[in-house]
Amino acid sequence: MTADTASSSSPAGSTGDSADAPRESIPDPLADVHPPSGRLSIDVPSLTRFLDGPHAEVREEVRKRLVDHADLLAEADDLGKDDYRDRVRDVVVELAGTGATAMGLPKEYGGGGDIGASIAAFETLAFGDLSVLTKVGVQFGLFGGAILQLGTKAHHDRWIADIASGRLLGCFAMTESGHGSNVADIETTAVYDPTTEEFVLTTPHDAARKDYIGNAARHGELAVVFAQLEVAGEQHGVHAIVVPIRVDGEPAPGVRIEDCGTKLGLNGVDNGRLWFDGVRVPRANMLDRFASVSPEGIYSSDIESQGRRFFTMLGTLVQGRVSVGGAGINAAKVAMTVAVKYADRRRQFEAGEEGTEQLLLDYGMHQRRLLPLLARTYALHFAQEVVAADLHEVFSSPDADEKSRKLLESRAAGTKALGTWHATRVIQECREACGGAGYLAENRFAALKADTDVFTTFEGDNHVLLQLVAKGLLTDYSSGFADMDQFGMVRFVAGMAVDTVLEKTNVHKLLERIKDALPGGSEDDWDSEAGLLDPDYQLAMLRFREEHMIGGVARRIKGQVDRGGNGGDVFSSVQDHVIATARAHVERLVLEAFVDKLETMEEGDEKVALHLLCDLHALSTIEADRAWFMEHGRLTVQRSKAITAEVNVLCRKVRPIAGDLVDAFAVPRELLRAESLIG
Amino acid sequence: MTADTASSSSPAGSTGDSADAPRESIPDPLADVHPPSGRLSIDVPSLTRFLDGPHAEVREEVRKRLVDHADLLAEADDLGKDDYRDRVRDVVVELAGTGATAMGLPKEYGGGGDIGASIAAFETLAFGDLSVLTKVGVQFGLFGGAILQLGTKAHHDRWIADIASGRLLGCFAMTESGHGSNVADIETTAVYDPTTEEFVLTTPHDAARKDYIGNAARHGELAVVFAQLEVAGEQHGVHAIVVPIRVDGEPAPGVRIEDCGTKLGLNGVDNGRLWFDGVRVPRANMLDRFASVSPEGIYSSDIESQGRRFFTMLGTLVQGRVSVGGAGINAAKVAMTVAVKYADRRRQFEAGEEGTEQLLLDYGMHQRRLLPLLARTYALHFAQEVVAADLHEVFSSPDADEKSRKLLESRAAGTKALGTWHATRVIQECREACGGAGYLAENRFAALKADTDVFTTFEGDNHVLLQLVAKGLLTDYSSGFADMDQFGMVRFVAGMAVDTVLEKTNVHKLLERIKDALPGGSEDDWDSEAGLLDPDYQLAMLRFREEHMIGGVARRIKGQVDRGGNGGDVFSSVQDHVIATARAHVERLVLEAFVDKLETMEEGDEKVALHLLCDLHALSTIEADRAWFMEHGRLTVQRSKAITAEVNVLCRKVRPIAGDLVDAFAVPRELLRAESLIG
Repeated sequence: MTADTASSSSPAGSTGDSADAPRESIPDPLADVHPPSGRLSIDVPSLTRFLDGPHAEVREEVRKRLVDHADLLAEADDLGKDDYRDRVRDVVVELAGTGATAMGLPKEYGGGGDIGASIAAFETLAFGDLSVLTKVGVQFGLFGGAILQLGTKAHHDRWIADIASGRLLGCFAMTESGHGSNVADIETTAVYDPTTEEFVLTTPHDAARKDYIGNAARHGELAVVFAQLEVAGEQHGVHAIVVPIRVDGEPAPGVRIEDCGTKLGLNGVDNGRLWFDGVRVPRANMLDRFASVSPEGIYSSDIESQGRRFFTMLGTLVQGRVSVGGAGINAAKVAMTVAVKYADRRRQFEAGEEGTEQLLLDYGMHQRRLLPLLARTYALHFAQEVVAADLHEVFSSPDADEKSRKLLESRAAGTKALGTWHATRVIQECREACGGAGYLAENRFAALKADTDVFTTFEGDNHVLLQLVAKGLLTDYSSGFADMDQFGMVRFVAGMAVDTVLEKTNVHKLLERIKDALPGGSEDDWDSEAGLLDPDYQLAMLRFREEHMIGGVARRIKGQVDRGGNGGDVFSSVQDHVIATARAHVERLVLEAFVDKLETMEEGDEKVALHLLCDLHALSTIEADRAWFMEHGRLTVQRSKAITAEVNVLCRKVRPIAGDLVDAFAVPRELLRAESLIG
Repeated sequence: MTADTASSSSPAGSTGDSADAPRESIPDPLADVHPPSGRLSIDVPSLTRFLDGPHAEVREEVRKRLVDHADLLAEADDLGKDDYRDRVRDVVVELAGTGATAMGLPKEYGGGGDIGASIAAFETLAFGDLSVLTKVGVQFGLFGGAILQLGTKAHHDRWIADIASGRLLGCFAMTESGHGSNVADIETTAVYDPTTEEFVLTTPHDAARKDYIGNAARHGELAVVFAQLEVAGEQHGVHAIVVPIRVDGEPAPGVRIEDCGTKLGLNGVDNGRLWFDGVRVPRANMLDRFASVSPEGIYSSDIESQGRRFFTMLGTLVQGRVSVGGAGINAAKVAMTVAVKYADRRRQFEAGEEGTEQLLLDYGMHQRRLLPLLARTYALHFAQEVVAADLHEVFSSPDADEKSRKLLESRAAGTKALGTWHATRVIQECREACGGAGYLAENRFAALKADTDVFTTFEGDNHVLLQLVAKGLLTDYSSGFADMDQFGMVRFVAGMAVDTVLEKTNVHKLLERIKDALPGGSEDDWDSEAGLLDPDYQLAMLRFREEHMIGGVARRIKGQVDRGGNGGDVFSSVQDHVIATARAHVERLVLEAFVDKLETMEEGDEKVALHLLCDLHALSTIEADRAWFMEHGRLTVQRSKAITAEVNVLCRKVRPIAGDLVDAFAVPRELLRAESLIG
């Protein structure tokens, strides 16, 4: 054995600490087992207001409305499929009546005219039944959003008021069975017939049926259908056309509708499939903000490139991704609240002195399972706040420049991926941490787990989204983003050889910031000199990783292409590196959001508490990838172990206030649905 | 930057490879992108026979029976709760008629008299509807097993034949709402009344109700009830008594039954809650293999210690854990089959040359997501084969010594934990890898995911089970196992100070084996000299980790207790280390099982293929914990990167035969229920 392994008492893999290692570098976890005498006193309502941010009133209003419908959570267990769907529809229409669902639509049509408020409202809906949330997203975000963003005044005048009120329910029909992520290549056709001034919509074969379309199986009357437009024999790429799919409850002529049937979750949403057999709709039904067809059949658009036009259209729909990411993060809050409160009252084993039982949350392992996830939930909350604010800014100013839009799209994609993966992980861990009781439908985990599972793949598969993020990083958002097939990483990779990629990226800018911020100041010692709890150190580590990965992946692509590899093979060989790079980038943004937010906070115990959480989030993030940092010379073995030990110490410090920290999420008790777990 | 980070092209976190690093140590992943010219030719039926092992005929028979009932998979989506339960009951009774379910019960009562065969049959049931599997487990394993193992001939004569035929359905009523894992402290009481020669069963308060009890809500007539026995005013600990709970479909007098209602999954099983209000049953209903009460009220038992007696009883029920572990591993095979076959036919993106699209499984990231999990599924299959064989041996020889029993209990606990966590992870990853289609109930993932989720917490919470494994390691199974409260790690920890723990454990035996096996032979160079694909090297790494962790955790406990820490605090501070140690131990057993099994295989392409899988499993296991190995001086940065690169190369080598490798699981096509995914 080496000297190191012989002398040190081993940490337990990724979760151990090192109480018996030298005192100067590694804190003693037992030193903090008991709450410090100066235990933090958290003003929960004040922390809630801080978390609720600029749209606190909207969030509070939605909480109240959800409590009105809290019974739905239990009823959903026993309602048949159609009854559940109708019940959800009724709740959605009722919510629409209160104004809670159409905050993103213009005021002149009965909406709220405030995109930021609409995201806040939607996120808060995640505290309630998630079929309601999803149906709201389909109706007001996707369907209403498409008509608003891709249509022009005539479309708005004709439909938006009825959409906002819930009188007119509709679908967003983009995805086809044969084309999940690759939407530029969908195969439904819309051929313009100048003799009747109509578009003729056709589903050429079964793989081109529209699939998984919300509102299609039962309630939708209209659908925004994405189809390949052909005018006078010429192909113009994907465009959006409004098609009536259901009249008086029956499928419209030429439209075939099939029910997707029971799903793992979200069974209150009526997903369906659509086929079009020569369905004719008037010329005016084409959403013509970015391109139009004249009565006599002349196609025109201000955007010349077909690909660019399509991605301009898609770009306007970024709100859907921001919404789903936020929904995931807020669903995670529900699970965290139940699991932390359960662990803070449940006594399972006899421990400590005879007759006194420790609470579950007093156990090191239980803290390790829950508290870094709690810290990450806070971090993602603040990251989501940034992306929601960006969305509001870009979409509230019609002249937002293209780079802002691209940065927003990238940030939305990355936050959606990390937020929804976090939801899946948190809900699973919290379910297990509540034992068998978590499996019963009478506790909320069953529904939370089943309903959120698809978040990782809808509104863009998370892996595909991270590829999009990586593409932006590799071009510094300066070119090729909108012009490219969104999913054509392969062509992109093949094309990279012609440029000197490294010079186009911002690979050395972040390192400059590291050197400026940290005490050592030189390239070689900033990491070993800084304190583990210094946010500049924590950020420097994540910035270093991101930079190094961007440079590395660019060099690998270039090297392999230069050596004659074809695009497909090269991309296949670097794909995991590409995705890891994007993830490293988003992780850095998340930590920055948390650190920045802390600086805005007034001094007090709440700030101290959030500092603990931020440290816990930062160090557990570094710890999770400590192998990489060691492999790249940024962590010594001693320092790596010290980080693990510090994470344990932070868990113990957070433990006494963990109940307050979940209470601050302010998930109404009626919605927790965890009677048998937390009373 | 250090020299290392400046010169090497970075691997992508935990998933990257290192194509541009020096050639001598790191393979070029592109070298193996295309199938080798000598592509392996796998004889799938022959590989299936190898996997099916000694009970191949039983497995084949159960496959056929499941195909007979394949319609149930789809029907389950639309049946109401009670109809689904009744349908599952009917299928279970029909299966009982074929002899497929009672292979573990004695021949003289219509069973198969073969424990190994009964495990093989049960595992195979995991290919079908998992409510059927679970109800079979409740009826024949838990209920029938308890009467068989805890009862004596009179009980067997009275009940086993009816149980084996499915004429008499019953419950295993141990868990209480207030005591999930801590079953020694359940609170239901059974007081002996010598005047009537009856036991009087009482639920003293709501937290002592029996909870989550399968067969209780609708079908069960009898229940084996675990209760605190009181005879003549004296407490004797937990004993099992057979109680009629339902007569002609109505609750028996004094018994209150409540339905647990809808669950996240397994809704074909009628879980319920039971309360007893002074229910009287004859003295003969006590299962008296380990203790009895005479008519006049004299308690006697051959086992003096109350704790030891209880854990002897529990020990006889180890078959349940072996069964659940095997069910998890086999459910994972279903998911792997669908996801690999889907990825082997689905073309998503345009790639490669113009017009040719690569298959999903040609992408590096997709290989990384699926193929190490496929390798691990094989590894766990062979580990399960070992534990099933151990079970058969111990339970077929009435004189098996106590150490064999303890080793079996430990191995069963560990394999159950890793096998069920694997199922959860595999099913989630495979669901996501099939995109939105994986979310529809019409594909099998929805049911698989929902139904298997509880496997990680039932038949023993996985974390608690790993604590049990650790306890065995720390005492070398030589003492304190059966005598202790199964969950009393805290008392155990406090007691450890009195002994010199290290000398009791086998901490240095494994290291001896490392030194014998590897070329360097010395303590310092065995790891750097050996080839990455040498199984002795791979095993040495896992053995080193296990030993080091056992020693470390023992030293930490002893050190902290010696410094005056109380049991609860010390245990809380080492709990994660304890669990990581147990996991390291089980990981070593799993790899050993795979390596040992390979040695028994005839030469041929199938053996070459399984060698690739074994290497992939071993190296991805080491890679997952490479931070630990670096921290403990057993991996250099270069070698750590080389392992990551080798894992990528192995993925590419396994890719062409991945379809054959899942076909070898021989999950009948009718049971895959993935029409829209794989046709």
